[in-house]
Amino acid sequence: MLRRLNSAATLRALRDGGESTLTELAGRVGLSRPTTEGVLAELIDRGLAAESAPRPGTGLGRPARRYRFRAEAGHALGIDIDAHRVGLIVADLAGDVVGGHRAGLDVQGPPGERLAAVRAAVKKCLAVADVDRRSLLAVAAGTPGVVAPDGTVTSCTVVPGWEGVRLARELGRSFSCPVLVENDANLAAVAERWRGAARDADDVVCVHAGLHTGMGALIGGRLHRGRWGAAGEVGMLPELGLRDTTAALITGMDAGPEAAAAALAAFASAEVDSPGSALRGAGVDHADRVLDAAGWGAAEAKEVVERLASRMARGVAAMALALDPEMIVVGGPLVRAGDLLVSELRRRIAPLCLSPVRIEASELADEAVGLGAVRLALDRIDEDLFRLDRRPPTPSDA
Amino acid sequence: MLRRLNSAATLRALRDGGESTLTELAGRVGLSRPTTEGVLAELIDRGLAAESAPRPGTGLGRPARRYRFRAEAGHALGIDIDAHRVGLIVADLAGDVVGGHRAGLDVQGPPGERLAAVRAAVKKCLAVADVDRRSLLAVAAGTPGVVAPDGTVTSCTVVPGWEGVRLARELGRSFSCPVLVENDANLAAVAERWRGAARDADDVVCVHAGLHTGMGALIGGRLHRGRWGAAGEVGMLPELGLRDTTAALITGMDAGPEAAAAALAAFASAEVDSPGSALRGAGVDHADRVLDAAGWGAAEAKEVVERLASRMARGVAAMALALDPEMIVVGGPLVRAGDLLVSELRRRIAPLCLSPVRIEASELADEAVGLGAVRLALDRIDEDLFRLDRRPPTPSDA
Repeated sequence: MLRRLNSAATLRALRDGGESTLTELAGRVGLSRPTTEGVLAELIDRGLAAESAPRPGTGLGRPARRYRFRAEAGHALGIDIDAHRVGLIVADLAGDVVGGHRAGLDVQGPPGERLAAVRAAVKKCLAVADVDRRSLLAVAAGTPGVVAPDGTVTSCTVVPGWEGVRLARELGRSFSCPVLVENDANLAAVAERWRGAARDADDVVCVHAGLHTGMGALIGGRLHRGRWGAAGEVGMLPELGLRDTTAALITGMDAGPEAAAAALAAFASAEVDSPGSALRGAGVDHADRVLDAAGWGAAEAKEVVERLASRMARGVAAMALALDPEMIVVGGPLVRAGDLLVSELRRRIAPLCLSPVRIEASELADEAVGLGAVRLALDRIDEDLFRLDRRPPTPSDA
Repeated sequence: MLRRLNSAATLRALRDGGESTLTELAGRVGLSRPTTEGVLAELIDRGLAAESAPRPGTGLGRPARRYRFRAEAGHALGIDIDAHRVGLIVADLAGDVVGGHRAGLDVQGPPGERLAAVRAAVKKCLAVADVDRRSLLAVAAGTPGVVAPDGTVTSCTVVPGWEGVRLARELGRSFSCPVLVENDANLAAVAERWRGAARDADDVVCVHAGLHTGMGALIGGRLHRGRWGAAGEVGMLPELGLRDTTAALITGMDAGPEAAAAALAAFASAEVDSPGSALRGAGVDHADRVLDAAGWGAAEAKEVVERLASRMARGVAAMALALDPEMIVVGGPLVRAGDLLVSELRRRIAPLCLSPVRIEASELADEAVGLGAVRLALDRIDEDLFRLDRRPPTPSDA
């Protein structure tokens, strides 16, 4: 047990403190030199540490050997399975992104087809990044909808047929490592805290504006999933304006679900020349055009965006009133930093709140969900690397 | 420091483990008998422990001395300052209630008048309970509205003129011990977890149905106050049906704030024979009559209650969707266990939620806020008793 503790402390010091000599490392962990030497030998043996290439000598005799954490000893894969596309990010054990890939998905295709497309995208991603599948120590995927603790999608209004899919289990067939599944807005929240606008905040609401607009919350710096994984779903109340947000942007009106569906269907039939990406894919392109036009100052498009912001503001405010967070980060496919939708949301949310909450635009663009998935996978790997009750797993490629 | 640690551990063992012999206590804390004896002498000296009265002997020689925690060494006072009445509860250091008192408040009176009435009620309460004011080690008060961390009421729509009152400071003038102030719904949540329906739950939303309906949330077993103390205030969005809930019950309709105010004013002028308790006091009596009539089965009253439940359900569901708690406890002046309002709320909230959340009626009746205040005060006292960085305070009457 003591050995396990020393090993975990040394590994952490090496990973977080950077390249070190034996003496530096022993001092940092508070162990004797001989003990540190033994622990280090074991870490090298397990493939988690290595001697660094010698630095150019100063001419004053042989420099002390330096050791480093082998971030390349394993990898984490984050998958963002959105309605109409899949985005992938691979990172090493230090969290540095080493590759990525994205591919289109047919939102109307049956779950089996979507899963096959995700698997093909994973294969492509790993090949392009030159990462061996056996080097993956954990995989995490984000999806719209409510995800139960066992990784089943228990509710999803965005992707037809997706509800009930045992996503963690289905994806698990492709990997020999643990596979986690989480709601996309929750992962966006994790990413904002890791590398985004919420790095310094503990209590945060993250808005993920897309087909529907979902939200994720961090409380005390940790993701608040809720008892059944459904926290943040105030958009279920239609009067709060978070449903069909993309459709509302396309139709340019405060459409109910039926009107939105009808408008989307009209788009689909109008775009018969792109049958593969039909319906919602086309809708998203059109949403982009509306946002672009608003950005250029087109009066009609601006008005549509303002109306959407006014509608969404009530839903975001409901979440802010429920939690009274220090800050709200607004991101997702409908949002670009500094654009009209964000400034309109900021202007309209603030007066609905009781507290002077900061409202910031995400800077992670459409990488938020994938990055959050990487962070979730890395946390899972850390759990194994630093757990004290049994021998940590050794990366299979080490 | 070690002595402080031993002292805190021994005090806790004595308080939570009950009357003990020296040997039992030493065993429980894991200290030697001589060390325990020294610590015990110090605790007796500080008035926090005492030798128990000897038990009837078994005839086999002199029984071992037994020691107990002196729960009477100090007291906690909980104050529930509602719109039209103040309720007080005094408890000893074991949390056992030793007295209480309640008195009416004029909701239209200026803050100074309300504060004077609260002070008079405190005096009466302590006299009736035969508790010396100097024996109070902490006081906590609950109030409608948002309470800043410094105990100022920063927002309050229920009591005219109450906004901006530095309540902790004002009340503090009457006591030499710490005085805390907290939102009433938050205290109700604390009470439900301490002695109410949420004893076994960690993630809980507590609904406090009154003039307006407020909510408090426990996350991971702890009160979630939010950054500015305003968490749970989704009722600020009028479409969520939590504003003027008592007025809605009185007017029997889905009244907006203006209609509700007009209806209340009409009541006030109709009840000219009770000018002191006018307006809202009278309204609350009338609300009770509606609830009673609904309980007896009066069709019109039942319909009014059902309509109110349908209105409130959206606000409670918004909070439940935001947090996805394990359970919702419904309490407050408008609620009695097992009554129609609760069953109607249960029936209407469930279908709006994504998760199978338990919805229970409070069993604490109108003591929830006062009991929560007592618990908050006791937590404050524990902080002092068990803090390790300086000598804990000695009760002044010990």
